[in-house]
Amino acid sequence: MTLASDLTDLTARDWETGPEGVVRFAVVGLGGFARNAALPALVEADYCEPTVVVSGSAEKADRIAAEFDADHGLTYEAYADGAARDAYDAVYVVTPNALHLPHVETACEFGKGILCEKPLEATPDRAEAVVSACETAGVPLMTAYRMQTDPVVRRLRELVRSGGIGDPIQLHGGFSIDVLGGSRGPDQWRLDRDLAGGGALMDVGVYPLNTARFLLDGDPTAVAGTTSGDGPFADVDESVAFQLRFPEDVTASFTAGFSGDGERFLTIRGSEGTVELRNAFSVGGERRVRVRRDDGEIDLTGPGTDEVREEFDYFADAVLSGWDIGPDGQDGLTDVRAMQGVYESAASDEWVEL
Amino acid sequence: MTLASDLTDLTARDWETGPEGVVRFAVVGLGGFARNAALPALVEADYCEPTVVVSGSAEKADRIAAEFDADHGLTYEAYADGAARDAYDAVYVVTPNALHLPHVETACEFGKGILCEKPLEATPDRAEAVVSACETAGVPLMTAYRMQTDPVVRRLRELVRSGGIGDPIQLHGGFSIDVLGGSRGPDQWRLDRDLAGGGALMDVGVYPLNTARFLLDGDPTAVAGTTSGDGPFADVDESVAFQLRFPEDVTASFTAGFSGDGERFLTIRGSEGTVELRNAFSVGGERRVRVRRDDGEIDLTGPGTDEVREEFDYFADAVLSGWDIGPDGQDGLTDVRAMQGVYESAASDEWVEL
Repeated sequence: MTLASDLTDLTARDWETGPEGVVRFAVVGLGGFARNAALPALVEADYCEPTVVVSGSAEKADRIAAEFDADHGLTYEAYADGAARDAYDAVYVVTPNALHLPHVETACEFGKGILCEKPLEATPDRAEAVVSACETAGVPLMTAYRMQTDPVVRRLRELVRSGGIGDPIQLHGGFSIDVLGGSRGPDQWRLDRDLAGGGALMDVGVYPLNTARFLLDGDPTAVAGTTSGDGPFADVDESVAFQLRFPEDVTASFTAGFSGDGERFLTIRGSEGTVELRNAFSVGGERRVRVRRDDGEIDLTGPGTDEVREEFDYFADAVLSGWDIGPDGQDGLTDVRAMQGVYESAASDEWVEL
Repeated sequence: MTLASDLTDLTARDWETGPEGVVRFAVVGLGGFARNAALPALVEADYCEPTVVVSGSAEKADRIAAEFDADHGLTYEAYADGAARDAYDAVYVVTPNALHLPHVETACEFGKGILCEKPLEATPDRAEAVVSACETAGVPLMTAYRMQTDPVVRRLRELVRSGGIGDPIQLHGGFSIDVLGGSRGPDQWRLDRDLAGGGALMDVGVYPLNTARFLLDGDPTAVAGTTSGDGPFADVDESVAFQLRFPEDVTASFTAGFSGDGERFLTIRGSEGTVELRNAFSVGGERRVRVRRDDGEIDLTGPGTDEVREEFDYFADAVLSGWDIGPDGQDGLTDVRAMQGVYESAASDEWVEL
């Protein structure tokens, strides 16, 4: 094994079967990520098409539908009532976290496949209800972990899982954004505990958490953490630092934030090498990878693949071809439980077993 | 303030008063670090001179004395009995951790200044006894935190303390070495809990811990951690991950290790920028610094100053000129207490208040 061969063919879709047809999507929720990242990705995707958009505002729904050539703009009420239900095959749920469940239940009622944004829901109980509803209805459910369909991250997973850095020992990672810097300021659902279930941890801390689980192929067994926040962040965590214990004595030390200088990195130190992933979690970002081993070092800048488009095509290929989705509902539920554990630990000053 | 001016004059000795005379050192303990780093640094230092070396073996003491032109090679017993006590002004204690106290007590008895290796002792009680003995004797005591006399680290401290990255929010850091890779293999005091007081945390984890406290000008209020180790590391921590809570909601997520791929880094994310220090803790290493702010980014490689020589001259200047030593005994004691807290937390699965 050489470093070069481990990391070449960066854009390969190792999951692709090349199905016939397309999956027609209803996009439920038209916030900034839906309009700026998801809908453009759906338009560009090979196996997807946005045919329905759903918003709280009929006017906005119509306007966005026209912008992206979707056939229908619906209100949430109309969606719940089954309007245009024959015009889509799957729904992409991209509302505030605590509204995922009812939209998922609607999709289940109509037998639609579901791609649901992370975190899967605002609490473990509600996330369990999402998973359970989809199982009962027999519809496919994917948690929208775009890092898992980022080609560079998938190559890293191959490297790590094949022993490319020996046995993983310790991880560090962080993802922080300036959540007040956007157009919404402090008046946004991400700062509302009821709607979001938490703050920086739920919104961005979930990225290093889930990506670590993906790379390691393991789930944490215990967590401890520290949260803080005041002012606009009085209701949720502005900053969080959390440590995870994984099997085989692996630990992960992660941070997340809603303010301050941005960061987005993940490193894994192993028995025989270290990988560093920089610009790790930005949308469509040019990932920077450094792999250091005794036999050499590689610095690599990824091609900046649109991993959101990859995510939609991954989901569509799985649905059309019938293979099992990696980031399924259970994957999302595991993270919601772990994050709830971090909050419990921050409140109790004790480690929380998962 | 500009980035460039914050970090220029990298080698400046901001503490230097240029005293007359030299401090004659007895080097107590002649392990690898003493022979390969400390004695060469003493020979090169401006205000120091090695005049006595002390070892368990008379033959070794004589041989090393000859090698470094020291006037006396002593056994520990001879040192304790006051042999050649007029030939040195200060002692540098560089024995296994749990032997620091008796050698410090000897130095106190003879009224000598003391530069004592980190960690100050193997337990908080014994570290307190070191501090107390020096206070009672009225002799200067410095804990040998060479990072505090590394010019690049001192420039970073100026940058951080002057608000160069705004308010610090979160730190990450790690220091891991291959402790079995040296000539001693598993037969060494660093793997003996009685002699070392612990494993990777005590030996190398103390570096990010103390450097963080130095850069932040603050002490942790609580700690949590995870330790692991088996085989040759059954007695001590082979790996440790620990989180520290500092005042003002600052957190630090640190790791240390005695095996696996080496790492040595420290980062501080602040409200207005981030600093990354690479190759942070190696002896005489070319530190690599990246400072990222809204107004620009600097990548800088330090000159590879011998911070051990700086440490000796810093101590000597302080002793000769009579100014207060920064990394004093209390500084060392604070770290021993914090590390003891990490071990308690790892055993109890609870946060430990400091």
